[in-house]
Amino acid sequence: MTDERASPLTPETRHVSFVGGASGSWRVVDTRTIVGEPIAHAARLHVSADRVLRVPDDAQWLLRGVTSYGRYTTRAEKRELTARQPPIGRVEATCAALIPVRKNAAWWALSQDERRAIFEESSRHIAIGMRFLPAIARRLHHSRDIWDDEPFDFLTWFEFAPSELGAFDALLAELRATQEWTYVDREIELRVVRVGG
Amino acid sequence: MTDERASPLTPETRHVSFVGGASGSWRVVDTRTIVGEPIAHAARLHVSADRVLRVPDDAQWLLRGVTSYGRYTTRAEKRELTARQPPIGRVEATCAALIPVRKNAAWWALSQDERRAIFEESSRHIAIGMRFLPAIARRLHHSRDIWDDEPFDFLTWFEFAPSELGAFDALLAELRATQEWTYVDREIELRVVRVGG
Repeated sequence: MTDERASPLTPETRHVSFVGGASGSWRVVDTRTIVGEPIAHAARLHVSADRVLRVPDDAQWLLRGVTSYGRYTTRAEKRELTARQPPIGRVEATCAALIPVRKNAAWWALSQDERRAIFEESSRHIAIGMRFLPAIARRLHHSRDIWDDEPFDFLTWFEFAPSELGAFDALLAELRATQEWTYVDREIELRVVRVGG
Repeated sequence: MTDERASPLTPETRHVSFVGGASGSWRVVDTRTIVGEPIAHAARLHVSADRVLRVPDDAQWLLRGVTSYGRYTTRAEKRELTARQPPIGRVEATCAALIPVRKNAAWWALSQDERRAIFEESSRHIAIGMRFLPAIARRLHHSRDIWDDEPFDFLTWFEFAPSELGAFDALLAELRATQEWTYVDREIELRVVRVGG
């Protein structure tokens, strides 16, 4: 079965490898360091449902993550998210972004109730993301605690139509102004556009 | 620095490999299948702070996990646990158990608030464990979502003195009678005693 869309990600794909290098279906238009150590600029991004075990010869970097169960969402929030969130791979969603984020030791030393309070009651992380649905599709990959030592804790993948670029900028600005983001000690923003292949 | 204790696990050790085979500091005295598919009986258990990549030639099985942040404990519960829990590797703790557990798809489809309500408000998982502190030391390893596909979700390691065997039996019986345990679809109970080496 041939799928003309560029994304190999289906709802069943759990482990994903993001490879920054010379090839891939997404052309990198901007590699921005928001906080912390930069990563090398790559010309293309390859999003793979295979487990890439090492950085390919023609690539600059490799980041891996896995989708998992929700760590903060309540039943009511989950129901609303499920009802509103669009799938990955919409034909019109030719713009995308990969945002790798690492949180500091103080965040990971918090208890579950403290993290939830900062995440949602203070920072409104779920509520902010909800306002941009269904325009901006989002897929969260956990990168912390997987067997290989990954440099980030989360790899979030966003997809949207070019007409939503302003909305996406606003979404990022709102999240970065939250109390939650004071715990982020490394963040990269990788903007890409679909080129096929 | 020589440490005469058998355990290579320090509070800093995050990734742990449990190898069931011909060698190791723990002699397996019982391999009990509580629910689901059994695992092969092994004579010894080797607990390794190294990342064992494949089942060694003289071994029957390999299980791997990583310690992580608390997914359910509140600040008050965490404070009490930290105050009461003993370290791994106490000289008198010559009895131990490895309990690999897998939960079913229904559990993982629950939201955070639903899981917390079953875990603690209904099942009193934290409160039950607390009653057996400091007699029974406990170390939880997450095995779900790490890069290699592991057959279990959690690998819990318990250590206690021989005089606490009855208490340990009671702890397991209480946990297995909870609502939380109705979601467990595979569980092995591996009882071991320290032999050194």
